[in-house]
Amino acid sequence: MANAQEKVVVRYLLREEASRIEERAQKIAIEQSVETPLAAVRDATLLRDVVGQVREIEDRGDGRFAVTIALAASTIGEDADQLINMLFGNVSLYDEIRLEDAELPPSLLAVFGGPNHGLEGLRRLVGAQHRAMTCAALKPQGLGVEALADLAFRLACGGVDFIKDDHGLADQPFSPFETRLPACAEAVRKANRDTGGATRYVPSLWGDYETLDRRLSLIEEEGLAVVMLAPAVVGVANLVALKRKHARLAFLAHPSFSGGRVSPILWAKLFRIFGADAAIYPNYGGRFGYSVETCRGIVEAVKGPLGDLAASAPAPGGGLTLARIPELLGFYGRDALLLIGGDLLLAPPERTSATTRELTGAVAAFAYGSKL
Amino acid sequence: MANAQEKVVVRYLLREEASRIEERAQKIAIEQSVETPLAAVRDATLLRDVVGQVREIEDRGDGRFAVTIALAASTIGEDADQLINMLFGNVSLYDEIRLEDAELPPSLLAVFGGPNHGLEGLRRLVGAQHRAMTCAALKPQGLGVEALADLAFRLACGGVDFIKDDHGLADQPFSPFETRLPACAEAVRKANRDTGGATRYVPSLWGDYETLDRRLSLIEEEGLAVVMLAPAVVGVANLVALKRKHARLAFLAHPSFSGGRVSPILWAKLFRIFGADAAIYPNYGGRFGYSVETCRGIVEAVKGPLGDLAASAPAPGGGLTLARIPELLGFYGRDALLLIGGDLLLAPPERTSATTRELTGAVAAFAYGSKL
Repeated sequence: MANAQEKVVVRYLLREEASRIEERAQKIAIEQSVETPLAAVRDATLLRDVVGQVREIEDRGDGRFAVTIALAASTIGEDADQLINMLFGNVSLYDEIRLEDAELPPSLLAVFGGPNHGLEGLRRLVGAQHRAMTCAALKPQGLGVEALADLAFRLACGGVDFIKDDHGLADQPFSPFETRLPACAEAVRKANRDTGGATRYVPSLWGDYETLDRRLSLIEEEGLAVVMLAPAVVGVANLVALKRKHARLAFLAHPSFSGGRVSPILWAKLFRIFGADAAIYPNYGGRFGYSVETCRGIVEAVKGPLGDLAASAPAPGGGLTLARIPELLGFYGRDALLLIGGDLLLAPPERTSATTRELTGAVAAFAYGSKL
Repeated sequence: MANAQEKVVVRYLLREEASRIEERAQKIAIEQSVETPLAAVRDATLLRDVVGQVREIEDRGDGRFAVTIALAASTIGEDADQLINMLFGNVSLYDEIRLEDAELPPSLLAVFGGPNHGLEGLRRLVGAQHRAMTCAALKPQGLGVEALADLAFRLACGGVDFIKDDHGLADQPFSPFETRLPACAEAVRKANRDTGGATRYVPSLWGDYETLDRRLSLIEEEGLAVVMLAPAVVGVANLVALKRKHARLAFLAHPSFSGGRVSPILWAKLFRIFGADAAIYPNYGGRFGYSVETCRGIVEAVKGPLGDLAASAPAPGGGLTLARIPELLGFYGRDALLLIGGDLLLAPPERTSATTRELTGAVAAFAYGSKL
């Protein structure tokens, strides 16, 4: 639990006229703390310690400002959802405001605890101590269980480290979760027996907490080690609770629904703080518009120093192709989990394993020099 | 469960060059369904039924387009989180795109089921059959339990219908949930005994599902009837699960963290679909920038026809003042739950009950004619 003087330091980006930015910053500080006119705050301690404090106003030109506000860490308690509420609850409803960054005091970082396994734990799972890791995807949604299991087998025969359900796979009539799970898990086990490989099947999870919890237990019974979920949809407090309860499992965080007014760099940092062992995001130059700078920021957020938290793995995806592997390894070095989805599925099924081996071969053979 | 032909019809707003909008619409349809190059989709049934279909492209001028896409309802299964993922999972990560509306087939509306109590249920709770309802707030965060209970007593003596914890009250050292709950509940009961009133205390809830579930049980044991939570933070699937499990309780949905790329009108509609008995939103002319048109849209979304779902109560707030009550009642008629927070707290404590009576008196005495 944070003490009364510890602060969560939050930075917002907004457009405002220079003559009004100080007043606006003060409004944000109030909205995200006591949320009431200061005339209604009659307690001096509260005015001093709980009302948000404007720390800095930075003019970024063109009518844009970065406003840094210190909030009392004690207003969070120990709850991840309340942290989100304090960072960007009501002010998310203002037009033209973005949440750029948040720095938590060590006590709060320790409360949430970060990843159980992290980048190094994922490496150990697949024996990738000295190289980048690879992940393929089971898709499209609409395929039946048999077709998905067949695809999983072919991808695993190609030696890819992880095979995740596409995040569009949920619990649908064409591939219900409880039949897909054992079928795909067995297909990957069979491929590993055939090839001597260590490919890991990663089921995708959706649902309320009790559904997630029940499915995680099924996944553990199946002997799997890694799962994927989307914290911006299922709720970050649920991620914290589930990674504590199912501590043997590693969690990949999918960015579904995280677009909007929160910086993708901050999302990735929050995913790590709340327990994601890897943070998935759209790489620069793919189907989405993320810049090289954003990707660098995400890498720093997930594996740079952050209290005593373990590093998570940056997991770029979103339309990566085999042809880009050398470039991607040059950029990320050995500290990435590369997601190659659709590009492995373009060749006909009888070529899937060979195409996958091109990927895994390139990643194994790369001369890893410097790292990002 | 939806059949193979039923569609979820989704409308996105985006900026694009006219020459490229068709290609862009097709990309969105693919991204939000099979999420893979169509060349990798080898099953004809899947191409026909599961790949998203562009239904309409509407030019709204100034380079803005509305794109309507039909998604197979079968891709949702029965899960609220997967619905969010299908509506705005990956495409939320595109810049310059907004989710404007979604129409669900009757089978999916029936799966989620809407509010257990709704507008009429809330009316019955407080005996407000022929007038609007009122709600005050316990704040600011940072006050101790005794001060909050004292404030609850004073507000209840003024005859307000509901007194909610401010959404900034969570489980913090200055007012831990488990001591705040019985203290404020008892303060309101005492006021009701003194005045013969029927004020309802509405605790605010944060946390992972197990925490929410445990606190809802405490709230039921305390004999309370209404709670507040923020579905955009705690996860919409958790709202569905909790409103089913704790069906006797009514749920107010707070919009915290819902600002961004999803229309507030759609959020309000989704809150209703997933089970919120009232949807809170910032009223026009308050601290936030919502327009009159947006507020009209929200009212229609929460209480207009929607399959067989009960109507929810529109609950405008965000800086409403006593002085605006006649205007607000003229606009909303009897079908609203008016949130008056800070304005009731500006007067010194000894004046709180009298100020609150000005509010409740004005709402009771208003000549309700037409409704919005």
